[in-house]
Amino acid sequence: MIGFGYWGPNLVRNFAAGARTTVVSIADANPARQQLAQATYPHLRVVGDAAALIADPEVDAVVIATPIFTHYELAKRALEAGKHVLVEKPLAPSVAQAEELAELAERQRRVLMVDHTFVYTGAVKKIRDLVSSGELGRVLYFDSVRINLGLFQPDFNVIWDLAPHDLTIMDYVLSQTLGVQATWVSAIGASHYGRHENLAYLTVGFADQLIAHVHVNWVAPVKTRRTIIAGSKKMVVWDDTSPVEPVKVYESSVDVQHIAKEAAYELNVQYRSGDIYSPKLDGKEALAVMSQTFAAACLDGAPSPSDATVGVRIVRMLEAMQRSLEHAGQRVVL
Amino acid sequence: MIGFGYWGPNLVRNFAAGARTTVVSIADANPARQQLAQATYPHLRVVGDAAALIADPEVDAVVIATPIFTHYELAKRALEAGKHVLVEKPLAPSVAQAEELAELAERQRRVLMVDHTFVYTGAVKKIRDLVSSGELGRVLYFDSVRINLGLFQPDFNVIWDLAPHDLTIMDYVLSQTLGVQATWVSAIGASHYGRHENLAYLTVGFADQLIAHVHVNWVAPVKTRRTIIAGSKKMVVWDDTSPVEPVKVYESSVDVQHIAKEAAYELNVQYRSGDIYSPKLDGKEALAVMSQTFAAACLDGAPSPSDATVGVRIVRMLEAMQRSLEHAGQRVVL
Amino acid sequence: MIGFGYWGPNLVRNFAAGARTTVVSIADANPARQQLAQATYPHLRVVGDAAALIADPEVDAVVIATPIFTHYELAKRALEAGKHVLVEKPLAPSVAQAEELAELAERQRRVLMVDHTFVYTGAVKKIRDLVSSGELGRVLYFDSVRINLGLFQPDFNVIWDLAPHDLTIMDYVLSQTLGVQATWVSAIGASHYGRHENLAYLTVGFADQLIAHVHVNWVAPVKTRRTIIAGSKKMVVWDDTSPVEPVKVYESSVDVQHIAKEAAYELNVQYRSGDIYSPKLDGKEALAVMSQTFAAACLDGAPSPSDATVGVRIVRMLEAMQRSLEHAGQRVVL
Amino acid sequence: MIGFGYWGPNLVRNFAAGARTTVVSIADANPARQQLAQATYPHLRVVGDAAALIADPEVDAVVIATPIFTHYELAKRALEAGKHVLVEKPLAPSVAQAEELAELAERQRRVLMVDHTFVYTGAVKKIRDLVSSGELGRVLYFDSVRINLGLFQPDFNVIWDLAPHDLTIMDYVLSQTLGVQATWVSAIGASHYGRHENLAYLTVGFADQLIAHVHVNWVAPVKTRRTIIAGSKKMVVWDDTSPVEPVKVYESSVDVQHIAKEAAYELNVQYRSGDIYSPKLDGKEALAVMSQTFAAACLDGAPSPSDATVGVRIVRMLEAMQRSLEHAGQRVVL
Repeated sequence: MIGFGYWGPNLVRNFAAGARTTVVSIADANPARQQLAQATYPHLRVVGDAAALIADPEVDAVVIATPIFTHYELAKRALEAGKHVLVEKPLAPSVAQAEELAELAERQRRVLMVDHTFVYTGAVKKIRDLVSSGELGRVLYFDSVRINLGLFQPDFNVIWDLAPHDLTIMDYVLSQTLGVQATWVSAIGASHYGRHENLAYLTVGFADQLIAHVHVNWVAPVKTRRTIIAGSKKMVVWDDTSPVEPVKVYESSVDVQHIAKEAAYELNVQYRSGDIYSPKLDGKEALAVMSQTFAAACLDGAPSPSDATVGVRIVRMLEAMQRSLEHAGQRVVL
Repeated sequence: MIGFGYWGPNLVRNFAAGARTTVVSIADANPARQQLAQATYPHLRVVGDAAALIADPEVDAVVIATPIFTHYELAKRALEAGKHVLVEKPLAPSVAQAEELAELAERQRRVLMVDHTFVYTGAVKKIRDLVSSGELGRVLYFDSVRINLGLFQPDFNVIWDLAPHDLTIMDYVLSQTLGVQATWVSAIGASHYGRHENLAYLTVGFADQLIAHVHVNWVAPVKTRRTIIAGSKKMVVWDDTSPVEPVKVYESSVDVQHIAKEAAYELNVQYRSGDIYSPKLDGKEALAVMSQTFAAACLDGAPSPSDATVGVRIVRMLEAMQRSLEHAGQRVVL
Repeated sequence: MIGFGYWGPNLVRNFAAGARTTVVSIADANPARQQLAQATYPHLRVVGDAAALIADPEVDAVVIATPIFTHYELAKRALEAGKHVLVEKPLAPSVAQAEELAELAERQRRVLMVDHTFVYTGAVKKIRDLVSSGELGRVLYFDSVRINLGLFQPDFNVIWDLAPHDLTIMDYVLSQTLGVQATWVSAIGASHYGRHENLAYLTVGFADQLIAHVHVNWVAPVKTRRTIIAGSKKMVVWDDTSPVEPVKVYESSVDVQHIAKEAAYELNVQYRSGDIYSPKLDGKEALAVMSQTFAAACLDGAPSPSDATVGVRIVRMLEAMQRSLEHAGQRVVL
Repeated sequence: MIGFGYWGPNLVRNFAAGARTTVVSIADANPARQQLAQATYPHLRVVGDAAALIADPEVDAVVIATPIFTHYELAKRALEAGKHVLVEKPLAPSVAQAEELAELAERQRRVLMVDHTFVYTGAVKKIRDLVSSGELGRVLYFDSVRINLGLFQPDFNVIWDLAPHDLTIMDYVLSQTLGVQATWVSAIGASHYGRHENLAYLTVGFADQLIAHVHVNWVAPVKTRRTIIAGSKKMVVWDDTSPVEPVKVYESSVDVQHIAKEAAYELNVQYRSGDIYSPKLDGKEALAVMSQTFAAACLDGAPSPSDATVGVRIVRMLEAMQRSLEHAGQRVVL
């Protein structure tokens, strides 16, 4: 484990508890974090230098949870040392670096996976099932709001910090499940506290009027994580802040014939047209599933929904959004 | 009153109840609506032809609540006949027509007002007070979501149907209160059921990183009317579907010094930083306030927050959004 | 129609709109209410004296929406004059009077019905269906909270004002649907503003551990109308203040075997065990259904879920609760 | 630490992290729990026999988190051995045993404290402040609902399991803050799955119409933790399941003069009369505060809001409720 900051302890806990994984060593440059790591896990080798960990012959796989701008260098060294690698999202700060890592992993015949945690949640798996089974009908749009009063990241804007969550969910539910690919993106933002944008509105275009939109924001009064996936037959609303009913399925299709017949006077009256249900979700911790998927990829060559190909695809969208942001929101073709 | 369809009866009821207004005549081309009007108001003159109502010498002011594409013709005739005119939003389907009406009213020395109902609600007035008093600090952004499973309008897309609400609120709270003017707009949409867009994402740019964004949608599973006005000191969330606490004020400012000192490890932990309060609102019906504001404009020459100048400004934004929509979301300078 | 106060206008509107009913005359002792009635319905005979209305030969049925203590006298006179009678809830302020009215109606072969509005709502009908179909399993308890900051009634305590709603729903769902009868009641209350209790906790006992509990309160900060009907297989929560999902059905049965096996350490972990769904409800206005049920009773002899027998049963519970209240909450056998 | 089951690990974690406390030894009769304790805390002495821990000369204070029926025996032995003692709630299963423990602690000059966790939360402290400062006015009632689909306790009914939470909060806010004492209790329950009641309605009477009511339930579809403390000036609603606004203060006093003037026709219209605010709460973990309060009591003789006197008072109410439950809900004087 390289990086024992905000997210690292969660990864260590899950890898330590996993049936097919053992944590051997933790590296963190910060002495206070080293001390915490050693106190919590007295039997592990805690080091300050990532190079020492990478060189450790007992280590088969390296997990990297450090700031984005260090991902490329660390992952590269680990792959060159013949280790499997799991990187925090996003894979790298540029498409060029992400692609180079993917190719290196390919050449080294090692697993390169990204921790797109959300695609391992019960909620997203349920949504994927609703989409793939055709229960939603034709998917019309994907709309996600991920806003809260969060700490600003010093090196990147809010897009690189929060949007990977929404884009990986969108990629999993639309591209990996339905086989449709994003064709363009656009991004508009504003920066109220310095150089980096603290809010952004992102749009992703697909063929046939399928559209995705994401609102990410570090300066919002209420924490909101709401994703709507609207289909021609049913619609899903996923409220990730709701402990009891996070996923709701609405039987609220629009009937075009019906519309034509209705008098204009009845406008706005009908705003739901059927039952609503909230399916019970798989409650397993997403990180536990993710870490064991990584283990299966390393040990069995099993596929994963957040492999290097997906990781590159997400970085490609992020980079295109960054370009759109710098060009007044112009569409950038992928 | 011309038009006794969906909205007309509400207007008649309020003008009938008003201290300074009397309803004299109702016109509607639809016989069934004429019959309903006559049954409800046996003492009024109900006619089929708007021209007859406009010619009525007892009529001092004409209220127009008909489909958008008829606004220009009807308002023009009424103003030419020397009547004051109140038109449903939006004022007209083009800037050219809206400006012509405004100039005609000016020449005729008659009042031309638009029924921007929301600016007469207790909620919007409270938000205006919070902005004008400086309680919010510097306004950072305006974000509004107005989505539901609504009836499609046959002649226009969702922007012309729903966005006037958000744009008039935004204009009132930002332009009329703070004196800042929108400088550009952009719009992206999708049409899943025919020619007209049924969902759209609209952005409005101002100077100094002030930005507004509106999501309007006729095909959404849950009715949502949520507007956030974020300031540097406090933030307001207005949920117009909440009967008890529609307006909440959050003491959730971002302290830049504070951010710099915080360790990255504490990211995401703090998502509210102070008290929340929900002020009691003026509960008067907005239409009652609006109708008496119109009466005061006609009788006393009193000003109104939805006069012809504002009406033209809103149509200018709508027209620019339409152009952006047809050009892949490109910015259109106002 | 006798009484054109708070509720009367709603009744008149529904009887006027009904296919099988015509409103002929309105009586109200208050001149201001007479004036309002006449202005709203210019073609009706509006009188001050209820006796004149009762004597009116064109009147076939009398609807009484006056203060509770006048119900007995007015209903008696109307029945004696050979009219059918619909009375606002509760039927009368004592069992003796309620029974006398029921017997009088029987003798006169006239309909005596009570306006237990809630049993005519789509929500209660849906709950009745869930109970009668066995979908809930064995019913375990009925728990209802009906509290808000309401106006105090000058002549009665909160039990007589609000509890009839809960007791009629309970009677409909349990007694009329399952055939079980309440065997005892108890009541505890407090009066913070004068003579009459402004809050009360009511319990109703049935056989086999089936229990009902009602919290009624005029001095509560948040308006709450929440009823839980728990079954051995599923549980229903009806939140009458929720516009979108008033009725939710929880698949949350308790498995006794399961409990025995679980370790004490897992206590509190599992708080829902299955899907939740919110059925679409019949949206017809309850008063419209109620008024036409009354018409069908008068014209066709059709049965109703709020006939005189039910009306007497409800008054019997209210009177017993009153007695319990005055005896420190002691159980009163019905 | 005696007992490393459901709650024990939380206590150990907090005592281990506390500035003035050190964990020396853990005792649990269950080998699996011993193993877990040893794995988590390799440096601690983990034993199977509580007697060994009590005899340990390095141990100054014993924390007991075992089933209720063992509290008396373990606490007694620990006090006799000269240790300070902290017991999980409730202190003991009978008043006789609770009083004996309190007297023994007194004689031994050792601290005997109960883990009434909730009185150490930021929410309860805020409510206490609102009451003690007079901001609420005269307190009218305390109403608490604590229901969910929980695991049944094998040895006790739901009253002994859940009601201690509500009673300790009530005792803290009313008795310790205002100096008023409960004078009687009553309890009604039902047992749908065996011998012990799984739901109960509890009432506690004070002087001057002050009343408290608690609904505890192991078989409810939705987890609810809602406490209302109504005052003559303001009212507090504490929703412990709400992450963002758990405590809300309503300016919703009832004005008696006002009531007298209102017409009966306006009944039910006004259901809030002022602003609502949600104060920011102290976010410190309650167990951390509790454990350090215990340390201060042991080391400095500092007072605590959950000392032996309070612990006995709570058991006295529980025992009286049990008696009422077995006598058809009759009032039991305290």
